[in-house]
Amino acid sequence: MSRYENMSASELKSELSAVNAKLAGLSAKGLKLDLTRGKPGAEQLALSEDMLTVLSSLDDCVCENGTDCANYGILDGIPEAKKLFSDLLGIPENRIIVEGNSSLNIMFDTIARAMLFGVYGSESPWCRQGEIKFLCPSPGYDRHFAICEAMGIKMIPVDMTPEGPDMDTVERLVSSDSSIKGIWCVPKYSNPEGYTYSAETVERFAALKTAAPDFRIFWDNAYVVHDLYEEKDTLADIFEACKKYGTEDRVFYFASTSKIAFPGNGVAIIAASENNIAQIKPILASQTIGHDKLNQMRHVKYFKNAQGVLNHMKRHADIIRPRFEAVIDAFRSELSGIATWTEPKGGYFIDLAVPCGCAKRVFNLAAENGVTLTNAGASFPYGIDPCDKHLRIAPTFPSFDNLIAALEILCLCVKAAAIEKELNK
Amino acid sequence: MSRYENMSASELKSELSAVNAKLAGLSAKGLKLDLTRGKPGAEQLALSEDMLTVLSSLDDCVCENGTDCANYGILDGIPEAKKLFSDLLGIPENRIIVEGNSSLNIMFDTIARAMLFGVYGSESPWCRQGEIKFLCPSPGYDRHFAICEAMGIKMIPVDMTPEGPDMDTVERLVSSDSSIKGIWCVPKYSNPEGYTYSAETVERFAALKTAAPDFRIFWDNAYVVHDLYEEKDTLADIFEACKKYGTEDRVFYFASTSKIAFPGNGVAIIAASENNIAQIKPILASQTIGHDKLNQMRHVKYFKNAQGVLNHMKRHADIIRPRFEAVIDAFRSELSGIATWTEPKGGYFIDLAVPCGCAKRVFNLAAENGVTLTNAGASFPYGIDPCDKHLRIAPTFPSFDNLIAALEILCLCVKAAAIEKELNK
Repeated sequence: MSRYENMSASELKSELSAVNAKLAGLSAKGLKLDLTRGKPGAEQLALSEDMLTVLSSLDDCVCENGTDCANYGILDGIPEAKKLFSDLLGIPENRIIVEGNSSLNIMFDTIARAMLFGVYGSESPWCRQGEIKFLCPSPGYDRHFAICEAMGIKMIPVDMTPEGPDMDTVERLVSSDSSIKGIWCVPKYSNPEGYTYSAETVERFAALKTAAPDFRIFWDNAYVVHDLYEEKDTLADIFEACKKYGTEDRVFYFASTSKIAFPGNGVAIIAASENNIAQIKPILASQTIGHDKLNQMRHVKYFKNAQGVLNHMKRHADIIRPRFEAVIDAFRSELSGIATWTEPKGGYFIDLAVPCGCAKRVFNLAAENGVTLTNAGASFPYGIDPCDKHLRIAPTFPSFDNLIAALEILCLCVKAAAIEKELNK
Repeated sequence: MSRYENMSASELKSELSAVNAKLAGLSAKGLKLDLTRGKPGAEQLALSEDMLTVLSSLDDCVCENGTDCANYGILDGIPEAKKLFSDLLGIPENRIIVEGNSSLNIMFDTIARAMLFGVYGSESPWCRQGEIKFLCPSPGYDRHFAICEAMGIKMIPVDMTPEGPDMDTVERLVSSDSSIKGIWCVPKYSNPEGYTYSAETVERFAALKTAAPDFRIFWDNAYVVHDLYEEKDTLADIFEACKKYGTEDRVFYFASTSKIAFPGNGVAIIAASENNIAQIKPILASQTIGHDKLNQMRHVKYFKNAQGVLNHMKRHADIIRPRFEAVIDAFRSELSGIATWTEPKGGYFIDLAVPCGCAKRVFNLAAENGVTLTNAGASFPYGIDPCDKHLRIAPTFPSFDNLIAALEILCLCVKAAAIEKELNK
């Protein structure tokens, strides 16, 4: 693939010298740059500042049904918050549980609950069923994989494609192995490639024949309204698709406002079939009296309705779109013929695929020259990228100037690693 | 015990008629009164109203160490919140994890974590150790028992005394049965009696010889600063006592601001030994990126310091002290020689002990006459009060007038049930 493949050794050496000289010059500036953090920047947080004071008196804290958000009660979320998510996600209110500040926490709890109690349709708790496995479309979200690793759930990588996970492999594996209990999905603007699953992929998920009667799709729709452009990716409705096949109990759906308002201080939900919700609620009732209703009300009063959220997301897009474009411009101008990358229309990440065997070297070179990248391999189960190829680029958090400076160094590191690879052949 | 014991049948019948006539008169008013809810009333919530807007701009959301509370990060709580709890509880900051809105949730998670991963010192996860048991001082907090019931942990009731749990029994049981993994304690102003464990009880907890190497005391200090009077109960420092015996790893300590500021919207903590904290944190790191730091900062900015919390609690006491006194006055004037009750100097409940075999009858009579009581038996494991004797009275939530009205009906119901008991002998 590399445009360095046809160069002679002396040409490569001279090219490497030039690249290294440029790197040395940039490195001498002593910059400390960071492309690891998939979190909104300061300008984005400022968009939501007024939410801090949107509840200005206790009168603001009372639900239409009279529930006082400032006191105990309500296990599954205030009605207003359910309606907001329902309108936004197209899921009926009675199939949504509005919880606390973290969808990751809900996912962990969902797995912990499955381990200890099973899910609707389980013959026994997962922790009593011997070895449990999950399919892990890769590259994927490292924190999904960390939950499995903590729980001792064996992870089986499945290749990602621009249409979603390689469904031939998914179908083959889940139909033959009843110890495969789940699959992690970030179906829209996937982490880290920014791929959105095709309608066919969603349909095939709904139609899956699974050996396990209690197989679950963990549908982490983290970037459901996180579009960068008017012309956005559309994701088919997984519940709608499942309805057709009678497989609605298969889906655990997650979302949160973390990258809508204040990250880590938002409101997160799980949505699922009525059977699943009925299995979850009594266990949840032994876990908590209820989640932070004031924060739920804060979001409701601030956004008013689903359209309010969508309008707000356009303001986010205006801030971060130029950053995604800066990354892609830099890669196009510097790395064409050397690496490949994704060009997402939303989400928080870009996947940079360097020549096989070069990702760790790029990571180290970047670190030596003042740019922190997410660990090579982080997007794979157990941190192992079999081709040592993928790097996750997070453009939202640094200042724009720092982003540009980091990209310049990153591109030189990719070139250096690619040339070194050719020289070592 | 009953002053009805020496009455003749005809005297009893005439007394019962008089009581029933009074009840009928009150019942005719059609009141709907509720003594079940151990939650602060509206006047108490109003004390904290200004907390809603104490974070008025994003500048207010930055920690002294530069951490932005409005963005991702910080697994174990912001330093300012750790310091506030540390000063309030007398526990070093490095042994406190500040989490989300519910200490009950932390307790559930702590048990779930023990089941799936074990605790520091466990030979294996509790769910791999066969039958697990917990000691349950009774009467106690129903939601503690609900966690055990959900998890399938066998509950063994232990009698409560004004000094705390019957420690002879506790010592005998934990020393001989390695499947006993824990005990639930509300050591100050216990739920529901309002007893505070004596220094000797605390010392005996620290000194326990346990058959299980991974035995844990769940020390739910829910009412740590919830004193009604200047002359308050003092609870000995469990960590200090354990230090003497080298048993610091034995304690999981819980507290929250739920009944300090806004119930269900507060900040909760777990405190434990360094060994325990080191075992918990990596698992917690797979559960969440962090808890709601804005709410942590809201509490810090509002209370400023531990003294701020204590001052605030005096204002709570001024509101609820008259309610506790009204209950005790009513019981003294109406139920002396019929029932007994506790007279706590803090907390949220009073335990009313009616003649054996009468609690359910009182519950039903009260319900028929417009007063909802907490289920008879609710304060016991599996909801079974072996003597059918205890009723939990929660005086904080109803209006004062409704409290008085409910007490009048309640006392008549106790009398009626006690007389019926004598008549049925």
